[in-house]
Amino acid sequence: MSAHKDFQKANDEYVANFGDKGNLPLPPSKKLLIVTCMDARMNLYAILGVKEGEAHIVRNAGGSAKEALRSIVISQRLLGTREIAVIHHTGCGMVTFNTPQLRSLVKESDPDNGALARAVDEIDFLEFSGLEESVREDVKFLEENPLVLRGTKVTGWVYEVETGKLKQIV
Amino acid sequence: MSAHKDFQKANDEYVANFGDKGNLPLPPSKKLLIVTCMDARMNLYAILGVKEGEAHIVRNAGGSAKEALRSIVISQRLLGTREIAVIHHTGCGMVTFNTPQLRSLVKESDPDNGALARAVDEIDFLEFSGLEESVREDVKFLEENPLVLRGTKVTGWVYEVETGKLKQIV
Repeated sequence: MSAHKDFQKANDEYVANFGDKGNLPLPPSKKLLIVTCMDARMNLYAILGVKEGEAHIVRNAGGSAKEALRSIVISQRLLGTREIAVIHHTGCGMVTFNTPQLRSLVKESDPDNGALARAVDEIDFLEFSGLEESVREDVKFLEENPLVLRGTKVTGWVYEVETGKLKQIV
Repeated sequence: MSAHKDFQKANDEYVANFGDKGNLPLPPSKKLLIVTCMDARMNLYAILGVKEGEAHIVRNAGGSAKEALRSIVISQRLLGTREIAVIHHTGCGMVTFNTPQLRSLVKESDPDNGALARAVDEIDFLEFSGLEESVREDVKFLEENPLVLRGTKVTGWVYEVETGKLKQIV
């Protein structure tokens, strides 16, 4: 548990080659927000050719648009983004379990811990069963949500972790 | 609103140079999860020297550990991560407003929209006032939360958007 010890050396190199990125403004220049999964294999900057300063990137387990809503409101209302891309991926952990199973697994790890049991029962883990279906549902959720600005362009994509390929679904 | 039209060309290049990344396993090799902000200026892979397959990356407005909790439980219990790094940054939008102000701004944009008003009143936007303080609070939140595995190494950092420099706080 010392992965963080590698940060400083890599960061020294980043600082040495920082260039003029210190002048980038806060609002994303492409007015774009991306919602995607936390999956370790997805380097969004490389996959999409996105550069520093261009897009807000929201990531969580599964790439849930529902959980991203707070960030989306801040992004659109205070920082001017007007386009959202939802990207889920093949080989996602979110299709391998469901909320009751994960709650049981957590409780069984420490059966006498009441605080743990209560805390985990409050969480909807937002798993899904179909990959392309989950993208379509998240796009629909955003298009119909009153908090998302009308006229927002919402697209949906699947990233293949096996090939590096991105495919537009919506 | 056509930023997504640039994805395909960049992705073709990524696929052409994909190498053997298709063999990377689902669990992060460094057993590391990073929680950070959606800010457009932060390319975590470059800043920290993280590579594909090494770490889960959770991003949301402000880098809220509270909102990241669902993802953290999935990451630790199903995919074996044991270390968490919380990274907030200078020049963050989360110190420029508070929840009542943003709720008012959203409601005023469409005053007769009851669904909008009800929806925005349900959201805690999780703003903060002090940068280093927000890092310390998030680290403490994770260290004390019953859902986070005991023995998890939690570190806290501030990234300077002006210089590219990363500073450890906790």
